[in-house]
Amino acid sequence: MTTAARVEVLLGEARGGSRRALGRLLAIAESGGDAAEALDRAILGAEPPAWIIGVVGAPGVGKSTLTGRLAAAAAGTHPGPAPHVAVIAVDPSSPLTGGAILGDRIRMLDIGDRREVFVRSMAHRGATGGLADAVPVCVRLLGAVGVAVVILETVGVGQIELEIVHAADTVIAVVSTGWGDAIQASKAGLLEVADVFVVNKADRPGARDAVRDLEQMLDAGAPPHDARTAWRAPVCTTVATAGTGIPELWTAARAHRDWLAQTGAFAGRRTERLRHEIGRRAVGILARRVAERLADDGAGGPETPEAAAQRIAAEIAAGDPSLIAPGP
Amino acid sequence: MTTAARVEVLLGEARGGSRRALGRLLAIAESGGDAAEALDRAILGAEPPAWIIGVVGAPGVGKSTLTGRLAAAAAGTHPGPAPHVAVIAVDPSSPLTGGAILGDRIRMLDIGDRREVFVRSMAHRGATGGLADAVPVCVRLLGAVGVAVVILETVGVGQIELEIVHAADTVIAVVSTGWGDAIQASKAGLLEVADVFVVNKADRPGARDAVRDLEQMLDAGAPPHDARTAWRAPVCTTVATAGTGIPELWTAARAHRDWLAQTGAFAGRRTERLRHEIGRRAVGILARRVAERLADDGAGGPETPEAAAQRIAAEIAAGDPSLIAPGP
Repeated sequence: MTTAARVEVLLGEARGGSRRALGRLLAIAESGGDAAEALDRAILGAEPPAWIIGVVGAPGVGKSTLTGRLAAAAAGTHPGPAPHVAVIAVDPSSPLTGGAILGDRIRMLDIGDRREVFVRSMAHRGATGGLADAVPVCVRLLGAVGVAVVILETVGVGQIELEIVHAADTVIAVVSTGWGDAIQASKAGLLEVADVFVVNKADRPGARDAVRDLEQMLDAGAPPHDARTAWRAPVCTTVATAGTGIPELWTAARAHRDWLAQTGAFAGRRTERLRHEIGRRAVGILARRVAERLADDGAGGPETPEAAAQRIAAEIAAGDPSLIAPGP
Repeated sequence: MTTAARVEVLLGEARGGSRRALGRLLAIAESGGDAAEALDRAILGAEPPAWIIGVVGAPGVGKSTLTGRLAAAAAGTHPGPAPHVAVIAVDPSSPLTGGAILGDRIRMLDIGDRREVFVRSMAHRGATGGLADAVPVCVRLLGAVGVAVVILETVGVGQIELEIVHAADTVIAVVSTGWGDAIQASKAGLLEVADVFVVNKADRPGARDAVRDLEQMLDAGAPPHDARTAWRAPVCTTVATAGTGIPELWTAARAHRDWLAQTGAFAGRRTERLRHEIGRRAVGILARRVAERLADDGAGGPETPEAAAQRIAAEIAAGDPSLIAPGP
């Protein structure tokens, strides 16, 4: 059986509610290359998930527990035959440490056992472009088999994680008083990406200060260019381990989704996201050509690095397009 | 006066010890574009700094204070007429927060006032590629005017910061018990980039545990492929505010530099770094071409993102090389 035929069979099974088939399809999407592309082609034109939520925050702020609570909230409001809610937890484990620090996954299981929530952990090990490419294919796949709400959970510090954040409609940024203060949130770039802020572990000392500092920094941000379309991130407080504040957080996140729909920003963001994905993939193809040339090219000749770069880019732009290999 | 002529005058003054001229040259390097390229061309073939040290760590671990101590150690061991030691502190401030969180700079001033240490803060605001391009030009410039030791200080969490880390010969990764434990260091990717580890604020409870955990994680890493060339990062302890442990840290860092020289890794790393810089610049040129095409191209047609990306990359590779604009 060809890959395309096998994908069609699995898609039929997954649409019928088979978690095993969905798991195999996600593995194909995650593996990249020709098989992932065959999968993406098979679901071309399918409806994307109705809502993609990103949950981002530094290690140790209680992100996974909070994600579990949000998944339960989403599942509770929309029961259905197929898994209605899916969580993709992206773990920034590194090549050296391997799977040693994947303890976070275990905390998801009490949610993952519920029939209506599908949980998938993805680790990135070295091949950074691979994960940035895989996540949007996985999200499209989940939409194509009927998943309405996708929650992407990731540590929000690096370039790869920000790529994943950009795949979401609504970004929930999690901080805790144990992690640091609002200044640290600012340094981590969370102020720019957050649609909703959460101060988790709000039963600890300093939570009130963290909320106040965040509110002040958000108020000090650039004034809205257009009062009708500008969204000011609200700051919620939760104790995720106890479930405290989850209904209020869920309401705030839904308010953001409604705002996106009402202002037309929803469709605009999704078109922009698709364009961004195409661009990243095109640059990746050209970057592989650059790497090939560099391997042959001596470094440190009588050129500045910029002059050498311009020469190599011009050589590639003058090259035969048939030299570009299809896919990785 | 042309830019090239002005640069020559400033270079002469900076080599003679003018900090004002060096500051203006660094501003040119930082600004990018044609002027930075003219500067890089003017110093082509000059000796690079003898030693480039990177200091990396999360916000709040005491990185700036430690950098100041290291700069003083480097200056103390090698007095000279021109600034012998230079610190480039890269601040990950964001467009929204602007210069509000640059308080770290102030702590450097007690070192910066010493004649033999030159301190420069660089903030990146939006133009990410710009900073990655600017830092190596700044480092080459410092070498060309006679600076022997360059210390690059940055928060080591994002892609841009890792680019800066890769510009260093010896990377010192700073953690503190206040920041988190060894797991967090692992999650932040520090284990992969560190040549020397420092547990700062070692007078606090938990420092001994942090050292033990780090040692264990380093021991659990991949076994050395070649005992002659493999370097295992030592773990030092410091109280930077009091100066405790600085001589031992300085000795450990110098041991790494000596190891680089003895194994031949020094020259190999520098050649690899130059090749990496050329590649990043070439990809940047091609990425600008991709962005131009995307602006004209509709997204969401009857193609997968990968198919659209392959088409655009092929169109660029078939294009006229003269279309590539020289410089940004």
